[in-house]
Amino acid sequence: MKQILKQCSPYELSQGNFGLEREALRVNRNGEIAHTDHPSVFGDKLSHPYITTDFAESQVELITPTFSTPAKAHEFLTALYDIVALELGDELLWPQSMPAIVDETKITVATYGPDGESARLYREHLAKRYGVKKQLISGIHFNFSFADELLRKWYQFSDHSLTYSDFCNQVYLKLVRQYLRYRWLLVYIFGATSTVHESYCLECEKESHSVSLRNSKCGYQNDEPLYANYDSVTEYVASVEQFISDEKIISSKEFYNQIRLKAKDANDPLASLLTDGIQYVEMRTIDINPFEKAGVAKVDLEFLQFFSLFLLTQPDNMITDWQEEAQHNYEMTARLGRIEDLELLRDGNHVYLQAWGIELLDEMQQLNKELALPFQEVLRHVKQRFEIPEQTYAGRIAKLVDEYGYVDAHLLLAKTYVQQAKNQAYRLQGFEHLELSTQILLRDAIKYGVQVEVLDETDNFIALSKNGRTEYIQQATKTSLDSYSSVLVMENKVVTKKILQRANIPVPYGQVFQNISQAQSAYEQFGKDGFVVKPKSTNFGLGISIFTQGGSLADYTKALEIAFAHDHDVIVENFIVGKEYRFLIINREVVGVLHRVPANVIGDGERTIRELVAIKNLDPLRGVGYKTPLEKIKLDESARLFLAQHQLNFDSIPEKDSVIYLRENSNISTGGDSVDYTSFIHPSYFEIAQRAAEAVDVNICGVDMMIEDIQNFHNSSMYAIIELNFNPAIHIHCFPYKGENRQVGEKILQALGFLS
Amino acid sequence: MKQILKQCSPYELSQGNFGLEREALRVNRNGEIAHTDHPSVFGDKLSHPYITTDFAESQVELITPTFSTPAKAHEFLTALYDIVALELGDELLWPQSMPAIVDETKITVATYGPDGESARLYREHLAKRYGVKKQLISGIHFNFSFADELLRKWYQFSDHSLTYSDFCNQVYLKLVRQYLRYRWLLVYIFGATSTVHESYCLECEKESHSVSLRNSKCGYQNDEPLYANYDSVTEYVASVEQFISDEKIISSKEFYNQIRLKAKDANDPLASLLTDGIQYVEMRTIDINPFEKAGVAKVDLEFLQFFSLFLLTQPDNMITDWQEEAQHNYEMTARLGRIEDLELLRDGNHVYLQAWGIELLDEMQQLNKELALPFQEVLRHVKQRFEIPEQTYAGRIAKLVDEYGYVDAHLLLAKTYVQQAKNQAYRLQGFEHLELSTQILLRDAIKYGVQVEVLDETDNFIALSKNGRTEYIQQATKTSLDSYSSVLVMENKVVTKKILQRANIPVPYGQVFQNISQAQSAYEQFGKDGFVVKPKSTNFGLGISIFTQGGSLADYTKALEIAFAHDHDVIVENFIVGKEYRFLIINREVVGVLHRVPANVIGDGERTIRELVAIKNLDPLRGVGYKTPLEKIKLDESARLFLAQHQLNFDSIPEKDSVIYLRENSNISTGGDSVDYTSFIHPSYFEIAQRAAEAVDVNICGVDMMIEDIQNFHNSSMYAIIELNFNPAIHIHCFPYKGENRQVGEKILQALGFLS
Repeated sequence: MKQILKQCSPYELSQGNFGLEREALRVNRNGEIAHTDHPSVFGDKLSHPYITTDFAESQVELITPTFSTPAKAHEFLTALYDIVALELGDELLWPQSMPAIVDETKITVATYGPDGESARLYREHLAKRYGVKKQLISGIHFNFSFADELLRKWYQFSDHSLTYSDFCNQVYLKLVRQYLRYRWLLVYIFGATSTVHESYCLECEKESHSVSLRNSKCGYQNDEPLYANYDSVTEYVASVEQFISDEKIISSKEFYNQIRLKAKDANDPLASLLTDGIQYVEMRTIDINPFEKAGVAKVDLEFLQFFSLFLLTQPDNMITDWQEEAQHNYEMTARLGRIEDLELLRDGNHVYLQAWGIELLDEMQQLNKELALPFQEVLRHVKQRFEIPEQTYAGRIAKLVDEYGYVDAHLLLAKTYVQQAKNQAYRLQGFEHLELSTQILLRDAIKYGVQVEVLDETDNFIALSKNGRTEYIQQATKTSLDSYSSVLVMENKVVTKKILQRANIPVPYGQVFQNISQAQSAYEQFGKDGFVVKPKSTNFGLGISIFTQGGSLADYTKALEIAFAHDHDVIVENFIVGKEYRFLIINREVVGVLHRVPANVIGDGERTIRELVAIKNLDPLRGVGYKTPLEKIKLDESARLFLAQHQLNFDSIPEKDSVIYLRENSNISTGGDSVDYTSFIHPSYFEIAQRAAEAVDVNICGVDMMIEDIQNFHNSSMYAIIELNFNPAIHIHCFPYKGENRQVGEKILQALGFLS
Repeated sequence: MKQILKQCSPYELSQGNFGLEREALRVNRNGEIAHTDHPSVFGDKLSHPYITTDFAESQVELITPTFSTPAKAHEFLTALYDIVALELGDELLWPQSMPAIVDETKITVATYGPDGESARLYREHLAKRYGVKKQLISGIHFNFSFADELLRKWYQFSDHSLTYSDFCNQVYLKLVRQYLRYRWLLVYIFGATSTVHESYCLECEKESHSVSLRNSKCGYQNDEPLYANYDSVTEYVASVEQFISDEKIISSKEFYNQIRLKAKDANDPLASLLTDGIQYVEMRTIDINPFEKAGVAKVDLEFLQFFSLFLLTQPDNMITDWQEEAQHNYEMTARLGRIEDLELLRDGNHVYLQAWGIELLDEMQQLNKELALPFQEVLRHVKQRFEIPEQTYAGRIAKLVDEYGYVDAHLLLAKTYVQQAKNQAYRLQGFEHLELSTQILLRDAIKYGVQVEVLDETDNFIALSKNGRTEYIQQATKTSLDSYSSVLVMENKVVTKKILQRANIPVPYGQVFQNISQAQSAYEQFGKDGFVVKPKSTNFGLGISIFTQGGSLADYTKALEIAFAHDHDVIVENFIVGKEYRFLIINREVVGVLHRVPANVIGDGERTIRELVAIKNLDPLRGVGYKTPLEKIKLDESARLFLAQHQLNFDSIPEKDSVIYLRENSNISTGGDSVDYTSFIHPSYFEIAQRAAEAVDVNICGVDMMIEDIQNFHNSSMYAIIELNFNPAIHIHCFPYKGENRQVGEKILQALGFLS
């Protein structure tokens, strides 16, 4: 097999499918398991693809989709954590496999409504057979399969005595046998349940060198070790059926093997394994890592990815009772793995755990090198835990528990993770390469149980699905709700104005010109009062000049030159007195109104402008490079020049409550403030914005309106719509500098019919 | 007034609104007025905005919308001519105001269905009062108003003793009075009815120096001259009401004045004139110009534009019986205008027609200069007709009739115009700056009575309206029928493939890469067989490399470099064996299938390649620069090189029936042939294309499919969809090199609900 692997490129070998599941108990601020219901915001537990419950009502289960790298699955799991953590109010997610303070009498089995009766009955069976407490033990499941292309390539090198499906079965069975053999290694690496709370079980608490109580007799296991036959799928299925007929388990899912063969049809897995073959495997040895918000470290998942290849290169087991030996090593490691010089058995011979571990990792490093794979750093990281046992998770958590006590140590970690989640509520972990607006929409979709998929990261192209219906969305607001022609109308300023005008909506009076001399001859008409010169199809304000008080023919001509450098058609129009407001329309209704203010600080009579800026920049919403809803204010040359015009410099100390602007333009990108005005604008303007959307027959858009007086009915002052934007950013309305989160992601999901 | 005009820029002075109406009799190839019905393709006469009938069923009336220049109105009228001429089968449009061969007993008054009863009754009244023959006289009406901005500017210079509306009335009344005074000039310039057919009236035929029989007693006039009062709108209305009560006419529309004051409300014009003021004027002196396909020359319309300004600068009439004098001059010119040294009356004094005309044109040239207006050439052109009377239209047509006879002379002209129309059936006169696809759609819209408007020429942005509903369309196929997200899906090749794949539609297997080294590592997988390397979001084939037989790693790398120069994401995919076919989907159905063939000629065993190319390039469908459905084949360096590879040069003589290709690529832009395959492709592929459209939820698109064997059911050979195009050209399916016109414009109108 190693020879076959060597025929594959590193790129091919790193292809696979990776998914994660994580359970986590909800606890109150005292570390007691919560008795509240699963948060209703997550909707129906049975249909939510990502957030549901496991055994107990308080046991949240997070499920990622399948990704092409472990890193992506890890990030999604982290994102799920953040989403759930922020909806729990005072409760926390317990960052440990072994339960928090448990009062067995108060644990309720998860309820699933009328459609989940069989799920409830099964849970009651488990509670009766294994006790409620054991069912509260939480863990990480890692679902893995090789890429189909890779399996097909391997198949090409085989002798073709098997069908492709049988060949794949053989590959996975080999993986499973070797996994079982070496699972002690995973227990050591992933073990993080060295201690347990006294309310769980006094006997368990006494273990003092354990690595993984969860993987010990204290944990969640069948009453006796069950050795299935892993030589072929047929024999495997037969052996599991035997367990059932022997009444050792009531169904295949009660067979708590450390690695599961997963079938296509989850409702009848044994039959499906026979028909369709093994689809993927589920690795279940992993304890929750208390030092990771997600409950598992990315490096460890990458180790498992490599480990799967490594296992395939291992010679088959030499002894007949290999399963018993593997079970022995597994139990020993789980219960006593932190004893120095602990001995395990290798093909019947004694061997030191640490030495064997290091030996295997050396072998892996060798393989990694031979295959030119990029796991060097990952393996080094893992190897260290054998070299310095204190660095195992089990060792580290034991130390922390010694210091703070079992409950407080874990609460401390849980609280840190919630704070981290709060600080980045505006973004979605693992999706940071997407625009903020898309991150917000995805976040809300995940929360409400709408299935998400990123179809193209560069283009911010996503798919949202629920109940068999899929919507394709780009940049959060480009959806099927709007027709192509409506978008094209908005993209063309001249056409937009014509249509609004015909709908009797005020727009600035203007004309389009194709050359400078033509436009110059209209100077008399525009130049005397305030005017605006802009390219017909500009974006982001490029090439626009605004003269609020009118300008000379020279100014006018200069502005024309700038605009014509951007487009062959240039619009000259009257300047409308007032301030600019962005009305965000979703589903034909105004959901938020925003006004942008140039970068500024407010004096306190003591601090310099430099200091005030530094303090304002501390806001976690401010960052650099559009990764946050607001940008840090820069003390750059333009700011210096602008201040100098007002006889100020960075070291000036502004008077208390005086507002000091640092530049002319109000762009968020140059440190401007976004201020939510939704509640401060006379509702008659909402109606104007909505009528504009109606005129161009559009459901989602940004309406930019100049308004002189926002407080009174619209006919009492000057106003005009200066632009319709077909791709309005939503994050500015969700995370403004001042004002409320207008929950735009939710509104879009509603508009798309995914929420009622 | 001249002083006020001088205050305005040439740009301002040239602003106005211009519209045209033209009547034309349908005749058969013998020059007899047709007795057939108005072509049913034009639908309902009452609601068609452009093509209807006037008095007789055989009298087509063409109506243009209002434009900002006379040139545009002229072009639209020409376009209307082309559209009608090509729907008449063997019939022709009679290019003359005076009728063709008329058999009074066979003329039917135009029928309008149940809603047009009053129209029919009025026509019967006219037939009784003036005789049917006179009603058959056709003409040109020129509707004109000054731009509102211009009138407002003039108003600023006035003493403000009048309201703005009264001021405008005064401007137009002044124009009308001077128009009437100088209308003899227009009769001379526009007169083209110097002869008439004997079947019309023997007495009329005898006139031998006439310029405009239409404007003479032979023409269409009230029984006696009616002198309305043009001092104010009130007095004008009163005088017309007097004519009615005196039973000289039955309604204001029977008042055949040479220039009409037009009201806002056409149903009650007199009342509306009093309430809303004069909206525009209709100049009615113009004979149909037989030498112009449109029936009127652009230069003459531009003359009228300038003439309107000129009239405003003329001092008011000095004598009280100016209307009688004007009537005298008008009648004299019409009947005897071609007599040398004909005398007219000027303020009671005799003056030679020619001399006075030249004097007035000199004055106009002077004014044009003073106002820096661009009508110099127009005025020179018109002045010539006074200097050389043979160059008047009346003189020219008289000469032609002398030579060929009245009927044949006009038939000759009519046939020339139909041939011209046929040669450019693929384009729409006046809209040549638009893409061919848009021209085709507009043409069909006009034909079927859908109102058209070009909102933005550069962007090919149009509006189509009917029954109060407006659709906005860009580039003919970007419509409201498709959602924005569907278009975005098609724009992104990666996303398109994912979606098609999930719908079980074959697409080439491929992968996306973000950098060259990543892509290189997949060489093994793709490079050995045929492969395609392309940028993720390319257009027009830029950056695409195709290796039908596979290539070396060096070739593969080179192709990657080319593609990465166009995009940060590059797709590598398997090459699908077969030929490429474009399926055009409109309203979810395949309406045409096209295959492109590289530039080629077919040998005849005698001619050289150079000669064969020259002959092929004679096809009127072939042009240069995308203004025609096909491009001329170029004998350029690439063609030379390509031929050299096959041991050929431009002077080689290919064997009979051998196909000689002149280049590799099949682009139409390099002289390729478009071949309609709609009837030759197995219908099972239609279904595949339709399923693809359904998968991305799109109504209009181009599906590019590679097919190995087009003749049999799709499962019998290789095929795959390689691209979906959201903006398919339609002209290639309407005017292919070989095959039928698939009438795509009509299909789009149907899809938009404008046709049933």
